[in-house]
Amino acid sequence: MTILIIAPDKDPEPWISALKSLDPALDIQVYPDEARKADVTFALCWNHPEGVLRDYPNLRCICSMGAGVDHVLSDPQLPEGVPVIRLVDPQLAQSMFEYVCAAVMGYFRDFDAYRAQQEQALWQPRAPRPIGETTVGMMGLGQLGEYSAIRLSRLGFNVIGWSRTPKSIEGITAYAGAEQLDAFLSQTDLLVCLLPLTEETRDILNLDNLRKLPAGACLVNVARGEHLVDEDLLTALNEGTLRGACLDVFREEPLPRSHPFWRHPGIRLTPHCSSLTDPVSVAPQIVENYRRMKDGRPLLNQVMPSRGY
Amino acid sequence: MTILIIAPDKDPEPWISALKSLDPALDIQVYPDEARKADVTFALCWNHPEGVLRDYPNLRCICSMGAGVDHVLSDPQLPEGVPVIRLVDPQLAQSMFEYVCAAVMGYFRDFDAYRAQQEQALWQPRAPRPIGETTVGMMGLGQLGEYSAIRLSRLGFNVIGWSRTPKSIEGITAYAGAEQLDAFLSQTDLLVCLLPLTEETRDILNLDNLRKLPAGACLVNVARGEHLVDEDLLTALNEGTLRGACLDVFREEPLPRSHPFWRHPGIRLTPHCSSLTDPVSVAPQIVENYRRMKDGRPLLNQVMPSRGY
Ligand SMILES: NC(=O)c1ccc[n+]([C@@H]2O[C@H](COP(=O)([O-])OP(=O)(O)OC[C@H]3O[C@@H](n4cnc5c(N)ncnc54)[C@H](OP(=O)(O)O)[C@@H]3O)[C@@H](O)[C@H]2O)c1
Ligand SMILES: NC(=O)c1ccc[n+]([C@@H]2O[C@H](COP(=O)([O-])OP(=O)(O)OC[C@H]3O[C@@H](n4cnc5c(N)ncnc54)[C@H](OP(=O)(O)O)[C@@H]3O)[C@@H](O)[C@H]2O)c1
Repeated sequence: MTILIIAPDKDPEPWISALKSLDPALDIQVYPDEARKADVTFALCWNHPEGVLRDYPNLRCICSMGAGVDHVLSDPQLPEGVPVIRLVDPQLAQSMFEYVCAAVMGYFRDFDAYRAQQEQALWQPRAPRPIGETTVGMMGLGQLGEYSAIRLSRLGFNVIGWSRTPKSIEGITAYAGAEQLDAFLSQTDLLVCLLPLTEETRDILNLDNLRKLPAGACLVNVARGEHLVDEDLLTALNEGTLRGACLDVFREEPLPRSHPFWRHPGIRLTPHCSSLTDPVSVAPQIVENYRRMKDGRPLLNQVMPSRGY
Repeated sequence: MTILIIAPDKDPEPWISALKSLDPALDIQVYPDEARKADVTFALCWNHPEGVLRDYPNLRCICSMGAGVDHVLSDPQLPEGVPVIRLVDPQLAQSMFEYVCAAVMGYFRDFDAYRAQQEQALWQPRAPRPIGETTVGMMGLGQLGEYSAIRLSRLGFNVIGWSRTPKSIEGITAYAGAEQLDAFLSQTDLLVCLLPLTEETRDILNLDNLRKLPAGACLVNVARGEHLVDEDLLTALNEGTLRGACLDVFREEPLPRSHPFWRHPGIRLTPHCSSLTDPVSVAPQIVENYRRMKDGRPLLNQVMPSRGY
């Protein structure tokens, strides 16, 4: 019974020590140096090489090392019938909220505009709108989106949300499904994307949709780079549809040095750091799911491959 | 019975219309065009010309057009025995909190450092500290400071505060008096100044005090420019004592174009806009105090000139 870590661009050590500190008897190995492929029953994955999961004949669980599973489900050679699970962690949600709060509050209080004025030594106060008359639109009301939406609403923003299935969340006006996307966008001053990446949400932040926002809206994308059509963002900023964009995720990461996002004055960018998974914080749920798998009990936080998240 | 507005750099119209809409019978005039000096009983002041308040023999109340009264009390020829009052407004406190929240959350989540990295197209994630292990130190726990302290504590920060007299505020560790200033500063990662400007607080943000902060602390000054010793801030930033400073107030406003603050990479600045008094929101308390004055009843929000606030 081996737990195999398959995460070429992550340091496995903090994961191994967090898991071992909970159960020193665990047999944890690191791809591609595993002793026997047939022993591997549980795979911990982040951007695993395509097709490689087929090599483990006794694999009984694939666990993402983050909240998203797009990097797992995008493998066309994913072994069929092996359950895929993900991490759900209050600390991830808190950390994501802090980032979203910094970005949204900064736009709301015109810190981007004042920065531009500072560059010109321009003293020009702007009257802020009342916070309750500023609408934050949250795309995705899952583990991360719902938490951020609730906290932003407690700060005083008018918060609306959009999800696949209808939701009822106190204090938040909830829209659902493709039919209600336009109504949602047309009211959103500050758009936050916390959708999972699926066939339905890929490229959703395109020029067509961005133009449905009120003029001068701002975008915060903390979900996946593939939600955003890069050239469309540049057009939307240059034509004034958007006032600014704060981006934490990109189609290619690290963002190539030649990418125009680095130098666009309307773009603030951060290196995929809005919410970093802490191995110590998530180790208990991994061990719990490993034991459930061994005992044949139902797994926690299982995703539905057909739906894509 | 005339209410006289003496505010050379403010547009009096919104004040007149807000007050008149509550009581059309009010006689409101604007300095220096008042009809009869002897009729003036109530003065609404913001940066009045020194000595001018002596010219009104029947003046019975001096009301600041903001939360601070330093601009009133600094007049060495202030008529003796005339009560000075100020504005206390929940909307001012909310607006101030929003600004402080944007500044503090941005520093906490390293948005300043990521901005510098962006300028160099540098992809370098930093692990954020847990919010509960980050200490915000609030200087001043009055109408504005207490509200911001409580709201920041609800966001998850460890919040400590400092005031003249001891305080007991749920969730906030309170320090008081000059004796406890060092203990307060030595624990503060993010220092927010919301003190009134008095003889005791002038120049309090000096190199000596800034060096008591943990290395790499950040400063948010939203109180008065005279709290901060300008050259000391530049030294503190250049020697690494401070990581950054967000300033809304300055010794001279508008900040002169030649001032080094405009161009220092460690300084973010805004044009005294963190909390703008809304005449509509404060008009009721002005009318209430005007009536109290007329009837000889005790005034609300009276300040103590001997103490300076
Ligand atoms: N930048 C980072 O550091 C970072 C860190 C962690 C996560 N993330 C990203 O954040 C994403 C969200 O995480 P989570 O844990 O909140 O996911 P989640 O719990 O699965 O929630 C997903 C939400 O999106 C909604 N949704 C899915 N497909 C939709 C569609 N076609 N139309 C409208 N709404 C749709 C879902 O609607 P229903 O509620 O109706 O199902 C749900 O509300 C992750 O997938 C990951 O990509 C980024
Ligand atoms: N930037 C802007 O747009 C803007 C807008 C509004 C106000 N302001 C500034 O904010 C300031 C604070 O406003 P506020 O309404 O909160 O004032 P406040 O209610 O009078 O509170 C002042 C606080 O400072 C404390 N304090 C005074 N002198 C002190 C000393 N020597 N040592 C330690 N603590 C001292 C007081 O202590 P005690 O509680 O013990 O008395 C009190 O907690 C105003 O005076 C104004 O300068 C700026």
